[in-house]
Amino acid sequence: MREMTQKSFENQSEDNWDLIVIGGGPAGLTAGIYGARSGLKTLILEMMLPGGCIANAALVENYPGFPEGIPGSDLAKRLKDQCEYAGAEIHVMEKSLEVNLQGEKKRVITDNRKYCGAAVIIATGTQQRHLGIPSEKKFQGRGISYCAVCDGPFFKNKNVVVVGGGNSAAIDALFLSGLAKNVKLIHRRSTLRAENALVEDMMSNRIKILYNTEIKEFKGENKLRSILINNKDKDEVREIETDGVFIQIGKLPNSAVAKKSGIKLDERGYIGVDSNQRTNIDGVFAVGDVSVSPYKQMGTAIGTAIIAASEAYGYIKRPYYYKK
Amino acid sequence: MREMTQKSFENQSEDNWDLIVIGGGPAGLTAGIYGARSGLKTLILEMMLPGGCIANAALVENYPGFPEGIPGSDLAKRLKDQCEYAGAEIHVMEKSLEVNLQGEKKRVITDNRKYCGAAVIIATGTQQRHLGIPSEKKFQGRGISYCAVCDGPFFKNKNVVVVGGGNSAAIDALFLSGLAKNVKLIHRRSTLRAENALVEDMMSNRIKILYNTEIKEFKGENKLRSILINNKDKDEVREIETDGVFIQIGKLPNSAVAKKSGIKLDERGYIGVDSNQRTNIDGVFAVGDVSVSPYKQMGTAIGTAIIAASEAYGYIKRPYYYKK
Repeated sequence: MREMTQKSFENQSEDNWDLIVIGGGPAGLTAGIYGARSGLKTLILEMMLPGGCIANAALVENYPGFPEGIPGSDLAKRLKDQCEYAGAEIHVMEKSLEVNLQGEKKRVITDNRKYCGAAVIIATGTQQRHLGIPSEKKFQGRGISYCAVCDGPFFKNKNVVVVGGGNSAAIDALFLSGLAKNVKLIHRRSTLRAENALVEDMMSNRIKILYNTEIKEFKGENKLRSILINNKDKDEVREIETDGVFIQIGKLPNSAVAKKSGIKLDERGYIGVDSNQRTNIDGVFAVGDVSVSPYKQMGTAIGTAIIAASEAYGYIKRPYYYKK
Repeated sequence: MREMTQKSFENQSEDNWDLIVIGGGPAGLTAGIYGARSGLKTLILEMMLPGGCIANAALVENYPGFPEGIPGSDLAKRLKDQCEYAGAEIHVMEKSLEVNLQGEKKRVITDNRKYCGAAVIIATGTQQRHLGIPSEKKFQGRGISYCAVCDGPFFKNKNVVVVGGGNSAAIDALFLSGLAKNVKLIHRRSTLRAENALVEDMMSNRIKILYNTEIKEFKGENKLRSILINNKDKDEVREIETDGVFIQIGKLPNSAVAKKSGIKLDERGYIGVDSNQRTNIDGVFAVGDVSVSPYKQMGTAIGTAIIAASEAYGYIKRPYYYKK
């Protein structure tokens, strides 16, 4: 079966586009909106479904324009619709495996097809960082989750723990407090990084915060049953029972395919860009969470996408105007 | 009356805030949302009403999140509401006259009061340079636009005119040539200031350039229907039918108050910032259209505001992760 696909793929003629956007999260979809609106024949390649990480957010409260917040899945749908109304084409469930970005014709090879574009915008986002404890993998999907919205409903009236200290961890803890019987937040530092508004919400939702605390081990038979935690202040290890652990300790950039093609990354693996979102390769831009930027917010991601799509337009349509 | 205000103002004690945002357009209101949500006591000073230039847009189609577009006034209201829900205070119809930004205490003096803040974000935007023809105001949003990217798609397959002779006018004409049926460029001089490459691009896109020509009058009922133009060579006035006129004769940054306080501007009067939106004065940031940036879109403005508000939080609170 795989062979047949491969064969038909080899014989296939090139599929030509002005702009190819790799990744269909908020940044990629925004690049699609701006690319298509400026008249570029624009394709978005998304390995999963449109919306990226925002689609799994229970409630997005800080994206400007939605005073009472909006469920992430609704916002994702709106971005996808807007992108398609603008005239961009979105291919979902199609993974980009290899890119060849040197020269005037940029090639993107997916698990389904070969594409050719005059410019490429990389918007592949990030993935969840794992704790890296040996027993972590064993209980993935058996008590350990990296997405409260996806898996929270399995823990109705149960005891859960959230690990992390930033906005994402706080948002997950708040979301889970509406489902679970008891929610604890475990953070390895003495202060949280989450917004004050979220910290106050956690207080009023009686979410207990364990500071200076790390998980040392996950325990259970087939399913997670308890965790060993270490309080660094007291240097005390104790076991607490829990049905679920939601890990929200940061992200890793999805930049492997870009790196292989010669795009320069910073020391943490994020794609290096200048103030116009240009990478080190002509006609190739990077936007959103996968690009170097100090603040990973949806509002900052869309800003970078607008700049890149506008630059891509300049690069494709007016080479003289486009100042390198 | 003015004297009384002045007197009570003199006796008034200082009004203390963590963060003072000057300007209540999309960038200023976003800075307010993020500032307040992070727990900063945040004040926004707006000389008119909230929303800035976006409030005057008939329909905002390219702000991500609104697939079918949203009237600018509705979007402005949503931003204002979100900002207030977050806990920021907005003072409208209050003009900032003078700022004293050196040192740890930043002072802002308005036509009503004196304020003191730990950090200041300048979000005063730009103003469009107008032609100054009496009938110009009447058709604003009814055929006359100052933003091709925003309003161009309303003129698909229609006849439009661009006014101006610089790069911005040429870029707008080229952008519109991909959408409209026919694009003319009207310029009051005998040569364009736009780069040769752009002029050549206009030629190859069959954009007709009317030199030494000025618009004398806009005509129509509710919507623009035609313009009276004067060719100064021939001293000939004639009427041409058009569906839209895009005026691109320059923008003016609202940076006079900032300049007086010692903030560095670029040669065109825009406020210089680094990639974290910091000006040359510690604890003072600039965001949105008044700051140096190549693309003036609402989506890029809010991105800069999120960065600045997050930086302002770091500057004031010095959390463990803030790196100066």
